Amino acid sequence: MKIAAMSIRADEARVEILDQTALPHKEQWVDVTEVDQMDEAIRSLRVRGAPLIGVAAALCLGRYALRCQNSEKFRQSALKLRESRPTAVNLMIAIDRLLSLAGNTESFDAMAIYAEADQIYQEDTELCLRIGQYGAELIEDGDSIITHCNTGGLATAGIGTALGVLQTAHQQGKSIHVYVDETRPLLQGGRLTAYELDQLQIPYTLICDNMAAMLMAQGKITKAIVGADRIAMNGDFANKIGTYSLAIACRYHNVPFYVAAPVTTMDTSCMTGAEIPIEQRSALEVHGVQLAGETMLWAPKSAQVYNPAFDVTPAELTSQWILDKGRFDRQQIQAGVLSHI
Amino acid sequence: MKIAAMSIRADEARVEILDQTALPHKEQWVDVTEVDQMDEAIRSLRVRGAPLIGVAAALCLGRYALRCQNSEKFRQSALKLRESRPTAVNLMIAIDRLLSLAGNTESFDAMAIYAEADQIYQEDTELCLRIGQYGAELIEDGDSIITHCNTGGLATAGIGTALGVLQTAHQQGKSIHVYVDETRPLLQGGRLTAYELDQLQIPYTLICDNMAAMLMAQGKITKAIVGADRIAMNGDFANKIGTYSLAIACRYHNVPFYVAAPVTTMDTSCMTGAEIPIEQRSALEVHGVQLAGETMLWAPKSAQVYNPAFDVTPAELTSQWILDKGRFDRQQIQAGVLSHI
Repeated sequence: MKIAAMSIRADEARVEILDQTALPHKEQWVDVTEVDQMDEAIRSLRVRGAPLIGVAAALCLGRYALRCQNSEKFRQSALKLRESRPTAVNLMIAIDRLLSLAGNTESFDAMAIYAEADQIYQEDTELCLRIGQYGAELIEDGDSIITHCNTGGLATAGIGTALGVLQTAHQQGKSIHVYVDETRPLLQGGRLTAYELDQLQIPYTLICDNMAAMLMAQGKITKAIVGADRIAMNGDFANKIGTYSLAIACRYHNVPFYVAAPVTTMDTSCMTGAEIPIEQRSALEVHGVQLAGETMLWAPKSAQVYNPAFDVTPAELTSQWILDKGRFDRQQIQAGVLSHI
Repeated sequence: MKIAAMSIRADEARVEILDQTALPHKEQWVDVTEVDQMDEAIRSLRVRGAPLIGVAAALCLGRYALRCQNSEKFRQSALKLRESRPTAVNLMIAIDRLLSLAGNTESFDAMAIYAEADQIYQEDTELCLRIGQYGAELIEDGDSIITHCNTGGLATAGIGTALGVLQTAHQQGKSIHVYVDETRPLLQGGRLTAYELDQLQIPYTLICDNMAAMLMAQGKITKAIVGADRIAMNGDFANKIGTYSLAIACRYHNVPFYVAAPVTTMDTSCMTGAEIPIEQRSALEVHGVQLAGETMLWAPKSAQVYNPAFDVTPAELTSQWILDKGRFDRQQIQAGVLSHI
């Protein structure tokens, strides 16, 4: 299938991604047809966003299946990509779907894998639309909504999760203003969400992460909505570092705090957030900024750093879970609804 | 008087400051003898920190008084410097002390102003020592303490306020670990506090501001201590943007939250924090980073920005006020103790 989304495109032979480390200043497509290329692109965050990583890895492996026609080689490559980032569970779920079709040397069916990969892409775009519909029902005319990290067309194959909700509300004609956390250290808000909102012509204000609480104290924020990289069965969820801090500020100011994600983000093997593995990244990310080949370091070289890519927001700070299967409140989550959908 | 502090030095004719926009990579002293030079240095944050700004402006004006020997010219220059930053009240208090001695054309006593300026410097170093003593009594062996922005020898004429407390505890032989908020947008934590802790050989870990809550959830932070740029009579205080967010996270995790400042930071004309004027700074600071002549911008050029330099932390989130006149708890503050010291 020929695929042309905001941040990924593919034909039967090749896969390309929009290099997100070069945005917003350069729109630069890079070839990630080879598994090694995709592995590098995921690790270096050229392609990122929990749903998109799963889709991108699947599309790459679908095409690799056609080329290699070998069950063992395919398995090795799939397992390699499965390790490329440890927190986003969509990646593991997508690859496990392909692996379940890999059979053995005699029964290897490359076309089935290729078709399944395209199916994963297709599903992700549809999940986004449904999340957008369910979530937009919560957004009121005149809302000022804060969001963290990037959860739009650059994070999924479709319109996005949290940002897809805002886009849907905007398209419904609701007048909204978005406050964008810049999202240190990798600045996905300042670079990517700002870029997407510019393209969507949705009015927004960019802030540093530590400014959100002050806006809330002034009554300038009416709602918060974020995405998720992994949701545990009790409703706790991992998302970009800083999400937890935002959720605490929302609680202190009585601002409703929503998470929007596809069910592919749920991990039935994690009962609580404490079981979600958290990726630690390089100290250099906190020592400064490296973007599009440029580097600026401001901390002393010797500075020891703590740099978790994600944090866990407990269910008790979350007002509603907006999934592609519907919206759920804390009472439903506590009753175990996530185990049944 | 000859003065040689960490970040300011002067003799009878000249004043120089350590350019804090060039730290930690370059230790570069710049001449700020002329009032215009000092004005530029304060506005551009080459010299910063509420107490230090007051001292630096006073030392500059003390020497200018000797040169100009003119009441009217002195007044104009003093009033100009008084406007150079709007939130830190120490600046206004220091300059008002000099203005009260400026007399008129006939009675202008340059030597009295010069001596008063040196006295302001001397007092600030002593205030810091007393704050350090009072505060260190709260620090226990084995504490892990988070701090925000920079409040040490680069923010005062002496050992500092919040950082002075940590330095004093360390010198008393207590084993402590400091978590340093990098403090976006201007990165005073990542650049200046990290630099000072390196020099003091106090172990520390640098984090992005949005990581503090996660450390607290893991039980890794036992106390928080920050400085202040202005304290209202009800105990609310303005400090570097992000302080309020940190205070909320401390409350959620039951981590004691202390503010350390000299009484020169108190503003008897502000009954509550709502009356403290908050300086708004350039959008470029949030669009990227400009340091030591280098610039890296990552946000879309068109991005609208909210960039308050400070926020206000309400008294209700503060566990104790560590002043040079002693330590005060919330009950004492509510009883109006700040009006009587």
